Amino acid sequence: MRFTSERRLDDGVLEREFTLGEIPGVLWTPDSAPAPDSAPAPLILIGHPPLGLDKMYPRLVGRARYYATEFGFAAATIELPGSGVRPRWDAAEQARAELRRVLAAGEPVTGEVVDALILPLVERAVPEWRAALDALLALPGLGGPVGYEGGVISVGVRLAVVEPRIAVAGFFAGSFIPAVMFEEARQVTIPLRVLLQWDDAGNDRQAALDLFDAFGSQEKSLHANLGGHTGVPRFEMEDGARFFARHLRRQGE
Amino acid sequence: MRFTSERRLDDGVLEREFTLGEIPGVLWTPDSAPAPDSAPAPLILIGHPPLGLDKMYPRLVGRARYYATEFGFAAATIELPGSGVRPRWDAAEQARAELRRVLAAGEPVTGEVVDALILPLVERAVPEWRAALDALLALPGLGGPVGYEGGVISVGVRLAVVEPRIAVAGFFAGSFIPAVMFEEARQVTIPLRVLLQWDDAGNDRQAALDLFDAFGSQEKSLHANLGGHTGVPRFEMEDGARFFARHLRRQGE
Repeated sequence: MRFTSERRLDDGVLEREFTLGEIPGVLWTPDSAPAPDSAPAPLILIGHPPLGLDKMYPRLVGRARYYATEFGFAAATIELPGSGVRPRWDAAEQARAELRRVLAAGEPVTGEVVDALILPLVERAVPEWRAALDALLALPGLGGPVGYEGGVISVGVRLAVVEPRIAVAGFFAGSFIPAVMFEEARQVTIPLRVLLQWDDAGNDRQAALDLFDAFGSQEKSLHANLGGHTGVPRFEMEDGARFFARHLRRQGE
Repeated sequence: MRFTSERRLDDGVLEREFTLGEIPGVLWTPDSAPAPDSAPAPLILIGHPPLGLDKMYPRLVGRARYYATEFGFAAATIELPGSGVRPRWDAAEQARAELRRVLAAGEPVTGEVVDALILPLVERAVPEWRAALDALLALPGLGGPVGYEGGVISVGVRLAVVEPRIAVAGFFAGSFIPAVMFEEARQVTIPLRVLLQWDDAGNDRQAALDLFDAFGSQEKSLHANLGGHTGVPRFEMEDGARFFARHLRRQGE
């Protein structure tokens, strides 16, 4: 992991861009580091849709700053494979083109289309997140308990299954879900919080409810709010932070 | 309205039992009254299932004390017709007996059974809540904005439609819902927060989701949590109080 830029935001949060091999990412840490003898700060991994970090930056930094200033959490994100400045790959481009064609033609989005779109992304992104986690937790002041939040929900589900350092997760049910993920969901046992935009035109509400039902976790909450994909109310960010604090502070102490 | 008892709880909350005609009720008010020139305290009407106030008291007083000490809200409840010390009435007793028979026989709970059980309760309880609201808002220190919370959800839906002084509501989706309430739900336009226990054996999950979908409110949130009827997590009470505060403080200022 190599830091490529560093700046102090006006609320004191330290924002550092980094690269991990070819993968760009951003790390945000609170103004005041934990005392030397106290537990390391919890770390929130912020997932996002494959639209490119540049485009997603305003929403990501808003959450990271809130977490750092109000809760003392560190937060980090990385670019998804095939997005932003990262090289495109043919299979993913073809799958995206096929989805656009199907939607434009008003045809049903079949399981094959969804699998081709999502599963290769999961296969590539999950090991990258794990490598980023290795590097992040080795940094001074980090090393505390870890939460994951955001979309792509299938990436989050796979991470929750295979990565034992992720102790808690907040998912955003806003993307297509391959059938196999409903099976993987049964293996998820960490505390979960799932956000669902009730009127999200690009989202299958019933699939989101079925996925929530499938999760094996003993503690899981679904929060549905009115409105479309980008209309998640601000109070859900605040509630999400309290959810992380309930679980990560307990672990970290 | 006649106060029949008064005591100061150890956190300073004033608990007063009252009767309104034949209807018993309880009013909880914060230790420190609002300053004479400040807005009156918001009032939360706490609804509950028809099990009798005595049986429900521990859960009701827990919420009322939290609202009073943490948020400065007043809270009140009244006994439902046919419950607790109030006289039984034949039609309601017959409807309850028929529900028990149907459940014991493993027969489906038909719309007729649900209508007979719930609609007469709604018809009687809603005017009583409105009369209680008249009396409560005339008391010194009250008169602020009003929220309603709890079950019976059909009572809450009807109240939200007919009672303009109720500015916001938190419902508990944990009882049978007559078909006509799905129509009435479309007329509800106040901000709503609906709690759903995902594994509530006595509850129809799909009916609760359909009712949430039917509400006409521009701001509505559904919070589903794992567990049965009485397993609502404590953090939902805290979140519910913040929900009321967001809407009632704004109104009261």
